[in-house]
Parts: sequence; C-alpha cells; structure tokens
Amino acid sequence: MTTSAELHMYLEEQRLIVENALRTVFSADWPIPGKLLEAMNYSLLAGGKRMRPIFVLAASAAVTNAGDATNRALPFACAVEMIHTYSLIHDDLPAMDNDDYRRGRLTNHKVFGEAMAILAGDGLLTHSFHVASQAARRGVSAERTLAVIEELSRLAGVPGMVGGQVDDMLGEQGQTSLEQLENIHLHKTSDLIAFALRAGGHAAGADVRQLNAFELFGRNVGLAFQIQDDILDLTGDETKLGKPVRSDERQEKVTYPYLIGLDESRKRVVNLTKAANESLLQAGLANPNRLIQIADYLLTRDH
Amino acid sequence: MTTSAELHMYLEEQRLIVENALRTVFSADWPIPGKLLEAMNYSLLAGGKRMRPIFVLAASAAVTNAGDATNRALPFACAVEMIHTYSLIHDDLPAMDNDDYRRGRLTNHKVFGEAMAILAGDGLLTHSFHVASQAARRGVSAERTLAVIEELSRLAGVPGMVGGQVDDMLGEQGQTSLEQLENIHLHKTSDLIAFALRAGGHAAGADVRQLNAFELFGRNVGLAFQIQDDILDLTGDETKLGKPVRSDERQEKVTYPYLIGLDESRKRVVNLTKAANESLLQAGLANPNRLIQIADYLLTRDH
Repeated sequence: MTTSAELHMYLEEQRLIVENALRTVFSADWPIPGKLLEAMNYSLLAGGKRMRPIFVLAASAAVTNAGDATNRALPFACAVEMIHTYSLIHDDLPAMDNDDYRRGRLTNHKVFGEAMAILAGDGLLTHSFHVASQAARRGVSAERTLAVIEELSRLAGVPGMVGGQVDDMLGEQGQTSLEQLENIHLHKTSDLIAFALRAGGHAAGADVRQLNAFELFGRNVGLAFQIQDDILDLTGDETKLGKPVRSDERQEKVTYPYLIGLDESRKRVVNLTKAANESLLQAGLANPNRLIQIADYLLTRDH
Repeated sequence: MTTSAELHMYLEEQRLIVENALRTVFSADWPIPGKLLEAMNYSLLAGGKRMRPIFVLAASAAVTNAGDATNRALPFACAVEMIHTYSLIHDDLPAMDNDDYRRGRLTNHKVFGEAMAILAGDGLLTHSFHVASQAARRGVSAERTLAVIEELSRLAGVPGMVGGQVDDMLGEQGQTSLEQLENIHLHKTSDLIAFALRAGGHAAGADVRQLNAFELFGRNVGLAFQIQDDILDLTGDETKLGKPVRSDERQEKVTYPYLIGLDESRKRVVNLTKAANESLLQAGLANPNRLIQIADYLLTRDH
C-alpha cells in the first residue's frame, strides 16, 4: 500500500470514530427540546473533513502509544468540532455572512429560522464545555482537563476565534494589510487548530515542550490551510470543492492571492508547512510522523 | 439598624464587590479587538441588581465563616453574570424578542449592530468558562472547579437555560398550560439561579446535602422571582421598574396571572419562598439566615 493510500485509510477511520462519538454528545436522558436537538445535529452531523478533531486524536497518538489514547482524547475532539460547528452557524446568519448554503446544504437558519439558529449555536458552544469536562471521567486528570477548558475558552474566545471573527468583519476590501490579514487568520482559524493539537497533547500527558511544539505546528498548519483555501477559491474545481469558486472576489474579500499573488501564496503554504513539521521533530515525540503526513497532505489537497 | 436597612447595606456592599470584579474579567494583556470589548462591557457593566452573583457569594458565606470565602467564589459570581448578560444580548436580537431598550438603555444591537451583538454574546459566553476556571488559582480544587464548569455547561446549556429559551420561543399564547409555563421558567430562569447557589457552595466546600439544598432553594426562589416579575408587570410602578408595565399583555405572553389569576400567583410566590427557606434550614449550614433574608426580600420587592 502506498503512503497516500494508507493515509487516506487512516483519515477515513479516524473520521468515522469522530462521527460516531459526535452522535452521542447529547445524553438521551437529558430534557432537550426536540427542535433544538434537531437544529444542532443538522449542522453537527453534516459531514466534512473533521480535520480539527482528527488533529486532537493524532496529537494524542503522537505523544503516546498507550491503547486508550483515543478514548481519552475523544471528548476534546468532539468539543472542538462542536465549537467549529457553532461558529459556522453563527457566521452564516443574515446579520453576518448571510449564506444560504454550506457544503451543498441549506444553512441552519434557512431550515430552522434565525432565532433557532442563534440558540443552536449557543447550545453547541455551551455544551462543548460539558463534553470537554467529561475527559476527567476517562482517565485524564482534573488538572489537565481544566487546563484544556481554560485553553478552549481562550483560543475559541475573545482573544482567539471570536476576536478574529470581529477583526474579519471590521476589515474592509483594499484597506487590509498583509499583517492584518495574517492576524485575522491566526485568530479566526489557527487558534482553534492550535487548541486541537494542544488538547490532544494534554489528553496524552504531553510535557510543556511538546505542547509548545503542537501550538506552533497548529498555528502554521492553520495559516497554511487558510492560504490554501484562498488559492483553491481562485484555481479550484467546483465539483471537487462542493462550492462555487471565485466567491472571494464576488464578496470583495481580501485574500492572500489578492495581496501577494498566487505564486507567493503557494510559496507561503510550502514554507509554513515545512516550519510546522520542523517544530514537531524537535519535541521528543514518540510518533511525530502521522501529523507530518497530515500536514503534507493538506498542502497538496484540491478540495 | 433595622433588619431591612442592614440587608440593603449588605446587598449594596456585595453588589459593589461584584461590579469591581466584573471590571477585571478581561485581561488587559489579551489582544481583544477594541470594539468587541466595548460591546461586551456595554452590557456587562450596565448595572442591575446582580442577584445571581450575589447568590453565589451568599451561598459560599452560608457554608463557611472562612475569611477567603468571597475571594474563592468571585470567579463563579462573575461567570454567572456573564452568562446572564450574554443571554440578554441574544434574547434582545431582532430575530428573537426584538427589543430596543433594556434597563432604560438601548439594547446591544441597537448600539453596535446585530453582527457585533451576536459576537459579543458569543464572547461573553465563551469567556465565562475561562473566568470560572480561574477559581482553581484561588484555592478551589481542580475537581471542584471542574464540577462547577460541568454544572454551568448543563444548567446554562441545552437541557437548561438555552432549552428553556427554545421552549419559551416555541410556546404560543393560549396554548401554554401551567405545567408548560412552569417548565419554561424552571429552565429559562431557575436553572441559572440554582447554578449560582451550587457554585457558591462548591467554592466553600459544601457537602452533597448542602449542594442539593442550594439547588432546591435556587429552583424555588427562581420560580418565585419569575412569578413576581409577571405580577409586577401587571401591578407595578413604571418609574420604580424602569420599564413599561403591561408589556406582557401587549406581547401576548402567557404569564402566571394570565393562567391562574393575581391572587393565586401571589400565593405561589409566598409558598415557593417558604419551601426555598425550609430546604436551607435542614442542610446543616453554618449561616443560612442571610440567604433566607434575601429570599424574603425578593418576595416583597416592588421592582
């Protein structure tokens, strides 16, 4: 089997583990209004690459060969995907990006109405902390679980993802510098990916050096991922992407290709990925290779 | 000094402690977009009775005479007020209750726009978990802090406050039974008050019997508070309330007086308060009296 085929099998296997876990994040014993549950699950179980939760599991497996590593890390994997999902629901709202479709399906508020979409987002966000807290029932210490919750509330919060979203909203076409654009992406996208890596590390008992390497890897991969997204929006194949291309232009979004050109953008993706991988190799990890494979794969993706 | 004057002094003193703490929940070192910070603080520092955080501090002081009780409980007090504030910002949105004024000031989205109001709410909600997690740096054990976070995500979340909000939204005039109305209020209002009491208990090392008594007290006081709100909307003095009366009628809201009449509603407030106070007296608390005073005060409030 080629490396690429083996990696795809691994990613598919991990994706299924995540999908199954996401189906159980709402306890059947809890009195949750049916329509709310439906609205949350509509977006949470809508598929996707599940890149963030897979990073949680892969980081955990990079630290340790212990057989229960996945089981310990799964609550954090689910939590990060719930945060990602809530942010998409709120971003799509008419007051924000006003999108009717996501991944080829109607957006949450187009199906359930604006009020329910706001509450479904609030519910997913709040419940992600409950799901994360359950790691302490799977062998992760209370101290480590608390550290993850602290990091989640920071990296998904006002100095992190929420702040990045605000900066993005306040930025205007033609008035955003490269530095500002990088700052927006670092917070809007990279912070949550850096969180995913660190959370996986915490679940597996990573030391400070490893956690820092994960954070650097996450930041660089997150930024590379965002630039690659910008590139694919310009050069990609609509059927592979599952969404219309050149939408950034139509929406007058400032992108990397817009600011520095396609060639320079591609160079940055390569260099960021290289930097990401190098940080892992110096952290004394038991198995850094899988994460490096994933980073390289993201670099060459066409969707 | 009369009991009433002494209680008012206590409430004012506690309110000031809470106000001061709320001013420091966002670290000056953090890169938070200025406009976002402004929007969050606009609502967070808008005054109000601060009933929920005062319940946190009072529950803590009911358990223990330790001098650092307030200091240990303050992170939870701030967290519950942040959750309450985010819920008001999102409730006021055009897609929800569409309110232009709250406490005599323009609502958040009227000042900062809808998109910023959604993000300010998301930011306050996310950051409340960070603030709660800081209790572990003030002498509360990691296990207790984690228990509080778990309870916050449940009681403010999908089977709690968010679920109550959904039920309220889906309920229709004339089609809501007394049982349904009670269920809505129990989740929409009481759950967060029950959380406040339990969180204060956790901060002070309360045992399971005390935590359960706090929860019962919180649920009953929360329900009594909501019924009293319904009564004041019908019978209150606009200048004391700081908002127009009879707004429930105009908005065709189902209320306790609407379903069971004013007299029966008043009787319920008295009985719920009595039940709340009784649960405290049997829990072996060091100082149950202050909480009982507060419950009695809420019973007779005119605003």
